[in-house]
Amino acid sequence: MRTVSIQLGSRSYDIRIGSALLSGTGAACSARGLAGRAAVISNPTVAPLYAGTVVASLAAAGFAPLLIEIPDGEEFKTAATLDDVYDRLIEAGVDRHDFIVALGGGVVGDLAGFAAATYLRGIPFVQIPTTLLAQVDSSVGGKTGIDHPRGKNLIGAFYQPSLVLADLDTLRTLSERHYRAGLAEVVKYGMVLDRGLFERLEAETELLLRRDTALLGEVVACCCRLKAWVVEQDEHESGLRAVLNYGHTLGHAFETLGGYRNLVHGEAVAIGMACAAEISRAAGFCTAGERDRLVGLLERLGLPVTPPKTATDLLTAALAGDKKNRAGTLSYICNRGIGGHAVLKITPADLAAAC
Amino acid sequence: MRTVSIQLGSRSYDIRIGSALLSGTGAACSARGLAGRAAVISNPTVAPLYAGTVVASLAAAGFAPLLIEIPDGEEFKTAATLDDVYDRLIEAGVDRHDFIVALGGGVVGDLAGFAAATYLRGIPFVQIPTTLLAQVDSSVGGKTGIDHPRGKNLIGAFYQPSLVLADLDTLRTLSERHYRAGLAEVVKYGMVLDRGLFERLEAETELLLRRDTALLGEVVACCCRLKAWVVEQDEHESGLRAVLNYGHTLGHAFETLGGYRNLVHGEAVAIGMACAAEISRAAGFCTAGERDRLVGLLERLGLPVTPPKTATDLLTAALAGDKKNRAGTLSYICNRGIGGHAVLKITPADLAAAC
Repeated sequence: MRTVSIQLGSRSYDIRIGSALLSGTGAACSARGLAGRAAVISNPTVAPLYAGTVVASLAAAGFAPLLIEIPDGEEFKTAATLDDVYDRLIEAGVDRHDFIVALGGGVVGDLAGFAAATYLRGIPFVQIPTTLLAQVDSSVGGKTGIDHPRGKNLIGAFYQPSLVLADLDTLRTLSERHYRAGLAEVVKYGMVLDRGLFERLEAETELLLRRDTALLGEVVACCCRLKAWVVEQDEHESGLRAVLNYGHTLGHAFETLGGYRNLVHGEAVAIGMACAAEISRAAGFCTAGERDRLVGLLERLGLPVTPPKTATDLLTAALAGDKKNRAGTLSYICNRGIGGHAVLKITPADLAAAC
Repeated sequence: MRTVSIQLGSRSYDIRIGSALLSGTGAACSARGLAGRAAVISNPTVAPLYAGTVVASLAAAGFAPLLIEIPDGEEFKTAATLDDVYDRLIEAGVDRHDFIVALGGGVVGDLAGFAAATYLRGIPFVQIPTTLLAQVDSSVGGKTGIDHPRGKNLIGAFYQPSLVLADLDTLRTLSERHYRAGLAEVVKYGMVLDRGLFERLEAETELLLRRDTALLGEVVACCCRLKAWVVEQDEHESGLRAVLNYGHTLGHAFETLGGYRNLVHGEAVAIGMACAAEISRAAGFCTAGERDRLVGLLERLGLPVTPPKTATDLLTAALAGDKKNRAGTLSYICNRGIGGHAVLKITPADLAAAC
């Protein structure tokens, strides 16, 4: 097992990465000093596979767990689902001495984390990410929230978990589509923060696609270390942390315009990165060869790289959010070569036209 | 003008207390380093009196203010009102470089503060409390939130303001009922934290009821200093801060059972304190004479001291929240003599029976 620590003063916590961690959930929560009851939030896809193990482990450790299921899918990361979670917590009498366990992918983690941040003005929570995307990205760093009809993650909070358990065994049951989507976030870390990681992904693409556990353990730990380094310097995204948005500005817009149904998050990010690499080339931050290496790697990983057909004015509006009355410019994250990053100031209209 | 500072590291801020502060709102926000646009959240009672001055001051300082009105009353401190505020913020394109100004009493401050805590994962906010209750209590310390049909403030966050401007002039337009209700919170500080304050309130009751500005300036500053001292030691209410709940455990239950309409918050707290003093006497924490001094002061301030007629089982259920399946006990705050406090472990049923 590997442990990556996030150092944030009183909000510090560990990420444990390894096999067979789920059956040790209760002991890990005890060791972390958690007490009371555990409200496990999961969904109908993940719960039948893993909730039994997690709940049994929590029960054995005396946490009297209850299971709350929410519907599966980004389209349910809404205020309505959050209200249902609040109702369940209140009905069960969960109080501020209890804690929440998020068992699932990014949607479960974001929504359960926001519930933990806001229920009774905040109770502790534990992330157990069961998707590659959640293990390398969304479960680490304290971004929680829900979507709004007008855009992703418009409502939320920075709220750090008490513990993250990334069990690599759960990646074996991930659908091919969601596994590959998670690889998009892995590629992101390499492209803007770690040339060595990027080149390893290029060299070991086949092993990666076969979900080799030893390689995944190293890759997940590497991504978590990179994210920890970024988050420790900029917890609330006032500067450096924005680098993690590489591929996400356009990605989010494509997701929003598709109603969160046509593309899963990682696919949208893959397309967003392919666009970002071309914009980076046009701005002089990388060569055409470097752009092509990114696009080539994404394609070999089975990820989409071509933007969905979208009217430029709709894309502009989605990028501008509702800031249409302002002469706003975006701070758009570019790659600098491979493994580095740069910020380009660009208007939503120019960015939409560049796709 | 008096300034009370709350020292919470990177979340530190000042409370300014004095006359004619509203017209200096823009300058104060500039001096605090705030930038972008100001979204002023108020209600139809307060806005006609003070929003003009605040908005003009913000406009003169370049903050391009917009005004968002929410309905007046605790019964509107709901998820539905919060959603309306989110929609207005999104429509207006308010982004994370902008800030919120809460102009009003406790409901406006709690809801606007929670909107600030959760919109785009948190934007800065300024509290301009216009009621006595908000000036001495709810605008200071970072408790934000909304009510739930099952209880008060069940959804919320600890989120500190950037600045608090307590303009004493605004207390002149407060209704007699709301002014007296605010005095209940002032009495609370004296009863459990400051015998000198309590005795001053006893000695200067008439001047207090005439809203003498000089006296109010001293009293508001005294309460804010007491609250600052408590919050600095226990920002997230894991210990000492619970002392500020004196009179509130039963008070909240009376409010919830009355649907937030029969009693305003301070009236419910006054009744809750009268009950608490009797329970404190029965537990041996104070004498009958000290209990009677509290009840006498509340009565001379025109505040209710007799619980509304409520079936004991309903009151028990309200006190237990939904923890009915747990063998829970409450940590109930008692007064120790006058100016001190003690904690009594008591079940909801025993507490309800003691009223």
